[in-house]
Amino acid sequence: MKTLYSIADYLLDRLAGCGINHLFGVPGDYNLQFLDHVIEHPEVRWVGCANELNAAYAADGYARVAGAGALLTTFGVGELSAINGIAGSYAEFVPVLHIVGAPCQGAQRKRELMHHTLGDGDFQHFYRMSQSVTVASAILDEQNACHEIDRVLREMLTERRPGYLMLPADVARSPATPFANALTVTPSEPDSSVVAAFRYHARQRLMNSPRVALLADFLALRFGLQPVLQRWMAETPMAHATLLMGKGLFDEQHPHFVGTYSASASSEYVRQAIEDVDMTLCVGTRFIDTLTAGFSQQLPQERTIDVQPHASRVGNTWFSGLSMEQAVTTLRELCLELSFSPPPDRPPVARTRVEKGPLTQENFWHTLQKYLVPGDIVLADQGTAAFGAASLSLPAGVDVLVQPLWGSIGYSLPAAFGAQTAAPDRRVILITGDGAAQLTIQELGSMMRDGQAPIVLVLNNDGYTVERAIHGENQRYNDIANWNWTQVPHALNAQGQAECWRVTQAVQLDEVLERLKYPQRLSLIEVMLPKADLPDLLRTLTRSLEAHNGA
Amino acid sequence: MKTLYSIADYLLDRLAGCGINHLFGVPGDYNLQFLDHVIEHPEVRWVGCANELNAAYAADGYARVAGAGALLTTFGVGELSAINGIAGSYAEFVPVLHIVGAPCQGAQRKRELMHHTLGDGDFQHFYRMSQSVTVASAILDEQNACHEIDRVLREMLTERRPGYLMLPADVARSPATPFANALTVTPSEPDSSVVAAFRYHARQRLMNSPRVALLADFLALRFGLQPVLQRWMAETPMAHATLLMGKGLFDEQHPHFVGTYSASASSEYVRQAIEDVDMTLCVGTRFIDTLTAGFSQQLPQERTIDVQPHASRVGNTWFSGLSMEQAVTTLRELCLELSFSPPPDRPPVARTRVEKGPLTQENFWHTLQKYLVPGDIVLADQGTAAFGAASLSLPAGVDVLVQPLWGSIGYSLPAAFGAQTAAPDRRVILITGDGAAQLTIQELGSMMRDGQAPIVLVLNNDGYTVERAIHGENQRYNDIANWNWTQVPHALNAQGQAECWRVTQAVQLDEVLERLKYPQRLSLIEVMLPKADLPDLLRTLTRSLEAHNGA
Repeated sequence: MKTLYSIADYLLDRLAGCGINHLFGVPGDYNLQFLDHVIEHPEVRWVGCANELNAAYAADGYARVAGAGALLTTFGVGELSAINGIAGSYAEFVPVLHIVGAPCQGAQRKRELMHHTLGDGDFQHFYRMSQSVTVASAILDEQNACHEIDRVLREMLTERRPGYLMLPADVARSPATPFANALTVTPSEPDSSVVAAFRYHARQRLMNSPRVALLADFLALRFGLQPVLQRWMAETPMAHATLLMGKGLFDEQHPHFVGTYSASASSEYVRQAIEDVDMTLCVGTRFIDTLTAGFSQQLPQERTIDVQPHASRVGNTWFSGLSMEQAVTTLRELCLELSFSPPPDRPPVARTRVEKGPLTQENFWHTLQKYLVPGDIVLADQGTAAFGAASLSLPAGVDVLVQPLWGSIGYSLPAAFGAQTAAPDRRVILITGDGAAQLTIQELGSMMRDGQAPIVLVLNNDGYTVERAIHGENQRYNDIANWNWTQVPHALNAQGQAECWRVTQAVQLDEVLERLKYPQRLSLIEVMLPKADLPDLLRTLTRSLEAHNGA
Repeated sequence: MKTLYSIADYLLDRLAGCGINHLFGVPGDYNLQFLDHVIEHPEVRWVGCANELNAAYAADGYARVAGAGALLTTFGVGELSAINGIAGSYAEFVPVLHIVGAPCQGAQRKRELMHHTLGDGDFQHFYRMSQSVTVASAILDEQNACHEIDRVLREMLTERRPGYLMLPADVARSPATPFANALTVTPSEPDSSVVAAFRYHARQRLMNSPRVALLADFLALRFGLQPVLQRWMAETPMAHATLLMGKGLFDEQHPHFVGTYSASASSEYVRQAIEDVDMTLCVGTRFIDTLTAGFSQQLPQERTIDVQPHASRVGNTWFSGLSMEQAVTTLRELCLELSFSPPPDRPPVARTRVEKGPLTQENFWHTLQKYLVPGDIVLADQGTAAFGAASLSLPAGVDVLVQPLWGSIGYSLPAAFGAQTAAPDRRVILITGDGAAQLTIQELGSMMRDGQAPIVLVLNNDGYTVERAIHGENQRYNDIANWNWTQVPHALNAQGQAECWRVTQAVQLDEVLERLKYPQRLSLIEVMLPKADLPDLLRTLTRSLEAHNGA
């Protein structure tokens, strides 16, 4: 039976128009009717997840690769299970639309004692809770639905942060009119005098700065500046780096890419190249405690230009209403016009050799380094994995998905599911600790159901090693339940589409990875590591963290 | 090194004083210092969980058995992961204290860009979000901590709903003074004229009501009325029932217990016994859509007396400030004084026989019925499990944990972990669907780590059968990933402490249960059921639900 064109169809057409071709989530009785429209939609595919938090993480991972993502949950129970994932997307500027199927308007108006409510007749508790972690939200009805959908999507795409739509079951199937034109997301035009003033002040500073460096971070990635930044670095010889959150922004094998900057926890070469210059251009940076060894960056206002999403700063003057793209384009033009001292020479790299002996954090990362090829997607969970990944030198076109600001352990496994859904033909390499993997393990089953072939490296160091590093090294609370990791994929997939290994020697890991150049099925490698072994960066960082937490 | 008596110690002593001897949660860097005090505490034991939502469910399950529970998470990521569990405790009146380890006050005052924040310098977003789902909350500091801990605990225990404490790492270790006296939780004394007026009006009604029935529900359980209600039913011959949420309140083999009341979806005998009388005494009832076939109860004001936590109603008059206990005691006394028609005879029960043939919802519940013994704890997940459990006739002293108002699927598996922690010597029988079990499966590992021996019945009906019943019977969104259920326990426990079975015939289930009279290790039974088979009650209920959602 062909149904009328409905608000559900309008919403789905808008998603497809924004390049969102997959909808992650969990069915529930208030969203089943909407799901019928999803199943029928020619361009938006339903991706069922094992639980809602995992679905939110998956939508986030998808959005980091595809540009934007969407999540469907049911009212109350579903949306609150997902809210930590949405908060992560909000903190880290990832546009994910959270659609919540809600009870019919009649039940809401009558304040009925419906299941999935707090039992008090108030149907807006969760809408209000979501407002802290979304940039725009709406309660849809027959009258406002189409323009509220457009408003929320436009804000979400402009600000690169989550949106929220409450969609009552009866509203979803109400009639609508298809849209005539695509959703336009145009940045507001700045006052040309602001651009001119920014250019003037930046030029004054740069003219008197023989040594200039660029430090770019995740907001540059999120606001689409990767192409212009890469072009700029190809034209202008300039030392450049990212923080851990911005990793993947540059071809890290470029001769003037100096490494991952971590303030005082950086290698001396990286620190000097970024800090000991006359002017550091900071583009989309956020200096988070864990990535700066407790705010130890030496980048005073007078020696920095700071480019942020809606304003940029030169010295101590802010220029408001300037987009990042305008600011970066201006700086790039100035750099082509002026000339600077050449960037410092790279220190010689120790030649890669076949690693021997039992696995350690050090030889694990060396071995993994050799395996990476252009185009890979690397996910590293918050913990030893993400901090270890900071030391990787990425080939061109490698995306790195990490979550150091929000730092929700377990994020990366479902995010890998989302990333692989967005990019089915790219290699997805997930590095996660054993503690982290336990939080969200069920999504391995969804990966296998969908025939995905990610490489899953479970760093088995017998508990929460990152927490041990911070506090309580031998405390029982940092122990976890012991799992048979290599049996997990087979338990979570009745078709047995997985290969598993347990490796204790660096050479074994090397051999296994060698076989996985073109993985055909999900591969899980349990990597045995010493309980207290840490990547160097983490060792330095955690000392300052514990001090900050007031040890 | 012996440390000073601290605010952390004070809080833990208060928990122990409230009978909370286990603290569920997940470690995180803002709560590790507090955890040191937990580990050292002589009476409060740390119970690490695989993730925070599961920990919240476990604390809820523990609280339903032990009277109150507690949960520890870290700031932001941890607390938001748990918030759906806390919301369930709030909706269903379960006192769980949520303690959140937070960044030090100095970092908060300086609005530092700390990890686990939204990056905007506001450290109270999550505290505010929690206020919708807690009855009392506080941000602790050195000055207010002890009396705020007492206030939040007192409100939590009085109102039987969750409390929230934000505990900055530096506050946890600040010095405190041990308390001199136990926390007193005394209900406010009612105006004696209110009690007298209630008695007078209730007496007038009851005098003219030859046929009287009692319908009690979950709030009677939560506010501690089980002993007085059971005593009353032993003294006075009266037809009595519960709704599904209140199941376990009575010895269901008592001759005048009529069954589980579900409004128009009840059996005719139950419906008549409760509705077709002159006066129905409702004690702690909430008429939820899913438990009343869409509000079909025929219990008009003029034929009911309604006893609620802080007020009671006779006819259309409310008596405010009356505790449930006072109201119930008054009614019990009136019933002893007056005389009523005898309750209807029970219809003959079909004799139990050995079930034959493939498993169905019907013979599954019959088989399980024979297995129950006094003292068991039965958990049934929202879905076919909970609705099927309504048909069980419980032996004395069986506790049933279901969550039909909040209805968060996946709840019952971690709740079983919590319940077994509270009552290590009782048999815990968990009944969950395959879809539901996938949401929270990792807590099986924690059960085995702690040597627990619950009986886990996974009803494998190939997807979300309860959703199929409501809408979309053959839609792809109601399918789930296929798991090898009988391999899951071994994957999640390196010591292999589990026994697993897959049963397709009723007689097989009977044989397996026969072996599990005194289970020594975790037992998982995969119960194969037809995809579209439903318990009778659910079949009736879902028709009205779909109508309510506006099919």
